[in-house]
Amino acid sequence: MSSAVQELETKAGAARDAARKLARLSTEAKNKALMAIADGLISAEKEIIAANQRDRAAAESSGMSAAMLDRLLLNHNRIEGMAADVRVVAGLPDPVGEVFDMRTLPNGLQMGRKRVPLGVLATIYESRPNVTVDISSLCLKSGNAVILRGGKEAIYSNLALAGVVQKAAYQAGIPEGAVQIIESTERTVVDHLLKMNGTIDLVVPRGGAELIRFVVGQATMPVLAGGIGVCHTYVDSSANLDKAVAIVYNAKVQRPTVCNALDTIIVHADVAERFLKAIAAAFLKAGVEMHCDQASHRILKGSPDLKVVPATDEDWGKEFLALTAAVKVVGSLDEALEHIDRYGSGHSEAIVTEDYSAALRFLNEVDAACVYANASTRFTDGGQFGLGAEVGISTQKFHARGPLGLKELTSYKWIILGTGQVRP
Amino acid sequence: MSSAVQELETKAGAARDAARKLARLSTEAKNKALMAIADGLISAEKEIIAANQRDRAAAESSGMSAAMLDRLLLNHNRIEGMAADVRVVAGLPDPVGEVFDMRTLPNGLQMGRKRVPLGVLATIYESRPNVTVDISSLCLKSGNAVILRGGKEAIYSNLALAGVVQKAAYQAGIPEGAVQIIESTERTVVDHLLKMNGTIDLVVPRGGAELIRFVVGQATMPVLAGGIGVCHTYVDSSANLDKAVAIVYNAKVQRPTVCNALDTIIVHADVAERFLKAIAAAFLKAGVEMHCDQASHRILKGSPDLKVVPATDEDWGKEFLALTAAVKVVGSLDEALEHIDRYGSGHSEAIVTEDYSAALRFLNEVDAACVYANASTRFTDGGQFGLGAEVGISTQKFHARGPLGLKELTSYKWIILGTGQVRP
Repeated sequence: MSSAVQELETKAGAARDAARKLARLSTEAKNKALMAIADGLISAEKEIIAANQRDRAAAESSGMSAAMLDRLLLNHNRIEGMAADVRVVAGLPDPVGEVFDMRTLPNGLQMGRKRVPLGVLATIYESRPNVTVDISSLCLKSGNAVILRGGKEAIYSNLALAGVVQKAAYQAGIPEGAVQIIESTERTVVDHLLKMNGTIDLVVPRGGAELIRFVVGQATMPVLAGGIGVCHTYVDSSANLDKAVAIVYNAKVQRPTVCNALDTIIVHADVAERFLKAIAAAFLKAGVEMHCDQASHRILKGSPDLKVVPATDEDWGKEFLALTAAVKVVGSLDEALEHIDRYGSGHSEAIVTEDYSAALRFLNEVDAACVYANASTRFTDGGQFGLGAEVGISTQKFHARGPLGLKELTSYKWIILGTGQVRP
Repeated sequence: MSSAVQELETKAGAARDAARKLARLSTEAKNKALMAIADGLISAEKEIIAANQRDRAAAESSGMSAAMLDRLLLNHNRIEGMAADVRVVAGLPDPVGEVFDMRTLPNGLQMGRKRVPLGVLATIYESRPNVTVDISSLCLKSGNAVILRGGKEAIYSNLALAGVVQKAAYQAGIPEGAVQIIESTERTVVDHLLKMNGTIDLVVPRGGAELIRFVVGQATMPVLAGGIGVCHTYVDSSANLDKAVAIVYNAKVQRPTVCNALDTIIVHADVAERFLKAIAAAFLKAGVEMHCDQASHRILKGSPDLKVVPATDEDWGKEFLALTAAVKVVGSLDEALEHIDRYGSGHSEAIVTEDYSAALRFLNEVDAACVYANASTRFTDGGQFGLGAEVGISTQKFHARGPLGLKELTSYKWIILGTGQVRP
């Protein structure tokens, strides 16, 4: 066993011990610790920025792109933002301890389910150092210990942030060991971590598709995976085209770099010409590039200023995360449903229609975390759904699906209050 | 790719296609199919028994134990029992389609969660051929397609039963392909199956601890694991000893071969002598063997007819599945909690006490699927908990914990009904 793996084993064991105590901590104590973390971030601004500059200098000299360098950046505003987010988490209701489904059986046993933390979470993440604070605060609020394993490129930033979190949390009464950060950047550490299913209860990968696939494939514990959104909006023959233009425009343009943004427009042939000309006019001003199938290309290719290119096979099922949309014309709702079934990632899908049966079929038949009639897929978000802070958006069906709040970082146990009952 | 692996790929693909249609089948159609399966089992009794005899002859000549041979046996009564169980599943409420948490947001969006099937389940099981029918009926009722992979020792029985299920189900309108059975007994097929996380949504191992560990360690999709119960009952210093004797006796003797039966008695030193002598007198008649730690051995060793032996290290944390109980004397509730934390399997744990604070601490602090005060752990059961048929008992914290009913074989999707809303 390498010394890095030994470090992981020791830290994971300490997290496990801390988790038992943390599970029983009062909401008051947890909130106090979260407020202390927020204060700690503000006071440690100088050290955090210094550590971040060290990471950014290394990243710059290794040729990191400007966009990635920006994701890595921590400055006064971003530190204030992190602290504000931690205070928001402190203000959310504590899911732990809630008793539900309580009932009395005919034999007099009183029983119900009581919400409890999952135990120890591990998170493997890339680039953005704010995840260190973000996940730590969500874990602490939900009574879970956390093992952090950030990317090599942000190691000094992550260590500085985790140091602030640990110091503030432990001083405020969080059991020591509840927040662990892995210092080694060896790859073998991740391989080993993903096999520790007796010690780690859940692993949360935060990053690109490759990282998520790797974690899902290797982990022996449950994985909370998601975040990849290939989102379609289908404009039906009976759509109100004003609504359709507004919804499609919003889904593509309002924030193109996120997982709930539109990737592919599917439009019924009967309204294709009118709809596509209208949305193209709107997209033109926003600078959206359209990757068109043959039928839609025929309709749009005439307009000289428009960024229109023929679609290739790679455009279907692609998450663009940019001002790009694929466009496909279909002859029927069935054809649209088949396309979504084949190319969707199970994230967010929408229909625009005034036809009752078409809306009902779409809502019933599309297999995705969030299925919309006549609204923008951009609403798929914990805050928008009223769940408070968001742990992530799950595209898997096990445990929880769609936007995940604090409650989704918990489990339950059955508690049974007897008066001497035995089974006949 | 071997031909057996190709067979699996083809069957899994067919199950996936069938699952899409099955998800939308009405409760009425599913119930009709279940009743047809029950009838089919009754009519095919002769063929089923013939296939079973073929398995049993092979097993006998390979030297299988009498207990295992009995588990393998299918006869008139057991076939009637299977058919009756299928009719019970037909009578249970259908979880699919339920809409819950429906609300209207300030912007007018109406949204809620709608219960949907998981998709394709695979089950890997040993010995008892009734699992073939049992899991198939639970899957069909909850709208899931199923891939069955039973043990080599029951292959002809399983094929006969699955044949009856398929024929009856498809004739009654279940989409063809919804029930698949893997005919190859090659081990590589299981290895391949456990990596098919894009096609199979959940794997349910049914069998011994080794099988479950293997599946948990290898599977890339979620696993519904459980069934290993190392169950403790702690008799507190303030226990009503009449209740304690009745509860401990019931937990050990009423059905010793199941996972919710008692394995270890923990007793407080203050009441150890009185309690142990009383329970030993009761155990004597039932033929229970007691594996005693030093303190309890000192109390019980005098009685000549009693089956009392000194405990070894292996007795702690052991699931006996027999008329055997380990016994440990402790000096405090804390010591009992530590023992349970160290040796329990997170299944069912009980305290017998009249002390309010002790009961509360036990219920709060023990981390197990089911935690009892003053009742027998034998109640951990889907039927007893009012959940209807039981898929299994989960000792994991993700998705669902404790007895699992049909609802636990489902997920949900968010449905959002808009009138043109876009995100500001």
